[in-house]
Amino acid sequence: MIRTFMDFSMKHRDEAAALDRDDPLGTLRDQFALADGVIYLDGNSLGVPPKAAAARAADVIAAEWGEGLIRSWNTAGWFALPKRLGNKLAPLIGAGEDEVVVTDTISANLFKILSAALKLANERDPKRRVIVSERSNFPTDLYIAQGLIEQLDRGYELRLVDDPSELPAAIDEHTAIAMITHVNYRTGYMHDMATLTQTIHRAGALAVWDLAHSAGAVPIDLNGVGADYAVGCTYKYLNGGPGSPAFVWVPKRHQNAFSQPLSGWWGHKKPFEMNPVYRPDDGIGRFLCGTQPIVSMSLVECGLDVFLQTDMQALRKKSLALSDLFIKLVEERCGEFPLSLATPREHAQRGSQASFEHPHGYEVMQALIARGVIGDYREPRILRFGFTPLYTRFVDVWDAVEVLRDVLATESWRAPEFAERASVT
Amino acid sequence: MIRTFMDFSMKHRDEAAALDRDDPLGTLRDQFALADGVIYLDGNSLGVPPKAAAARAADVIAAEWGEGLIRSWNTAGWFALPKRLGNKLAPLIGAGEDEVVVTDTISANLFKILSAALKLANERDPKRRVIVSERSNFPTDLYIAQGLIEQLDRGYELRLVDDPSELPAAIDEHTAIAMITHVNYRTGYMHDMATLTQTIHRAGALAVWDLAHSAGAVPIDLNGVGADYAVGCTYKYLNGGPGSPAFVWVPKRHQNAFSQPLSGWWGHKKPFEMNPVYRPDDGIGRFLCGTQPIVSMSLVECGLDVFLQTDMQALRKKSLALSDLFIKLVEERCGEFPLSLATPREHAQRGSQASFEHPHGYEVMQALIARGVIGDYREPRILRFGFTPLYTRFVDVWDAVEVLRDVLATESWRAPEFAERASVT
Repeated sequence: MIRTFMDFSMKHRDEAAALDRDDPLGTLRDQFALADGVIYLDGNSLGVPPKAAAARAADVIAAEWGEGLIRSWNTAGWFALPKRLGNKLAPLIGAGEDEVVVTDTISANLFKILSAALKLANERDPKRRVIVSERSNFPTDLYIAQGLIEQLDRGYELRLVDDPSELPAAIDEHTAIAMITHVNYRTGYMHDMATLTQTIHRAGALAVWDLAHSAGAVPIDLNGVGADYAVGCTYKYLNGGPGSPAFVWVPKRHQNAFSQPLSGWWGHKKPFEMNPVYRPDDGIGRFLCGTQPIVSMSLVECGLDVFLQTDMQALRKKSLALSDLFIKLVEERCGEFPLSLATPREHAQRGSQASFEHPHGYEVMQALIARGVIGDYREPRILRFGFTPLYTRFVDVWDAVEVLRDVLATESWRAPEFAERASVT
Repeated sequence: MIRTFMDFSMKHRDEAAALDRDDPLGTLRDQFALADGVIYLDGNSLGVPPKAAAARAADVIAAEWGEGLIRSWNTAGWFALPKRLGNKLAPLIGAGEDEVVVTDTISANLFKILSAALKLANERDPKRRVIVSERSNFPTDLYIAQGLIEQLDRGYELRLVDDPSELPAAIDEHTAIAMITHVNYRTGYMHDMATLTQTIHRAGALAVWDLAHSAGAVPIDLNGVGADYAVGCTYKYLNGGPGSPAFVWVPKRHQNAFSQPLSGWWGHKKPFEMNPVYRPDDGIGRFLCGTQPIVSMSLVECGLDVFLQTDMQALRKKSLALSDLFIKLVEERCGEFPLSLATPREHAQRGSQASFEHPHGYEVMQALIARGVIGDYREPRILRFGFTPLYTRFVDVWDAVEVLRDVLATESWRAPEFAERASVT
């Protein structure tokens, strides 16, 4: 295990400012509409608006919807959006042309691919009845697997492990699918996708990856590692807007094996023939279902367009520098407070966030937010800070840690208003 | 069969203008952003933008997303939108409080309720294995039933009838569900929801209604007729924007009977406890699944707000007057051309559209659109014209028929460009 932790100690804000001046990605920040007086370290939950989004929405509403009206399904390319955006997103995750569609939600897309993957696994070996995942996976993934298993009612089983190290032993000759989230939403722990996919395949199972916290955050090479299916999110690191449609990736080799049960008309080979019998589209199109929310979907492109100006290697380099600096500063400058790092120090195991446990994590986070430092809180005790190299600066990291130190030193988090649990996120 | 066809013959455009002057709903038109130079008779496919939509989108993007950031899930009420909008929509369809959520697509919502309805039907009587519907139903409804049946692989069957009159005989002791679209998308034929629901119940089956072409178009009383489940669309007569999220209605008596298999985290009783085990929300909340597209969903409210200023009885009265006038004028003024009415003349059987067959329907519609009269074409041979009493005027009807007469009289539709089938809608 190689530790590539930053080998310097930062004593002054000027040093952070100097890093920003030398940052080759620094100018990309100008393309985002950043709120005044806020240090935003929650792009892992909801990215900030690209500046282009406001004008794009205005255009979609006034010109495409208002003037083009029904004609815009063709003339403005609305009907083609899921595939066009999928192709624009593909390079960020190592996917090929016509292997990705932007559509629906992660939950619905997981239902589709788990359904398809179970059929494929059972065709190969009917005895495989287990879906392996982690108890710490984002809950909706587990809920969808539970919903599908209950619906099928054929003796399928969801087997959950408590630690990533238990996965290789848990994935065995009974495993149909290993459903793994690449980067853990709470801790930022990142799996080695290549090695784990190999392990899964060696056991004869299929590898389903959830990229919610890694697409646009870390380099991903789905085809390179030979993964089987993937889903992901456009509203976190991809800055597509609140609740913007998710994506689903199916490699060419699996696309035409089965149709999935959410067989709505957008997945039909010839939807406007209005034939009463479903005939799935050739290729990735069959993973579409119903009519998509065009205004929200159109904004996804504004986020993707920023990525065209850089690449995932450059973003990863800065992302690690940001989280390295954050971890180092918290440990140096807040060392006397009961904070413990929940995120791996090893780069190879870290996504683009840093999480710390604190016994009063909820209250501390509310106090931070009140001071304009926006991270978020996740049960139990986790303070979560995300780093989006497209717009996060090194001085933001410095300033955030200074505010954290002050909140902890003054115990301002003990104010009664910060204990209120009205919030739902 | 009572014919309540208009008993006057209109000879001059001024007579239509006089009807507009007397129209108590006439001023509502000012609340829509209508394109210049266009007579829009396709609100049955995509409603026009309420004027409020542009400002609402700008506010959601700049203030809620840009300034509020992640906090807006609480502070701007994003997380509560599906239920809040559902309650705003409920009065239009005779639904009660907390019986409707705006979410996902009709296709996904149908999958949810067909799943729940099959469980309920089989609990009552395991022998019931048939879903009855119409071959002329909108295809996605049939495709979703096919997808579910194939996935369950337990001997369920989709039985399709060719004419509404065959439904009572087809719904029998083997029927689990009758899945009926209230207003047919091609012909505008409207079922008698009360009588048919009674027939379905008398046979011991469950009544699932698709309100895509009737919500906001005709008065509906779901609870009054005792329907079992319903889905519907917000982007047609409700003017929610292209592909805006659909809705699903489940009456209180069925809500907690079962959870549905698309059991994503938004349907969990306590989503932010992040518990690995799915526990469905009490009530309509369990019919939610994944994170919703907030920008598109927010615009649904702009459409609903216009309905608060009137009521479905007033809208229905004008709707029938518009379609009556259109039918009468087409038959009087285009009588020498091969047009035949595909929509029932009887008010009780007509939605808010009028469809005519023409041997060259596709070309005629392209020629109309080129002249600024926007209806749409549906296979085979159907010219479809929708009437949205919120913004359609009687002079629009007069003018549209005059253009149609001219297109037919001059045979301008024979121009080669109108035969091109590049369009997907």
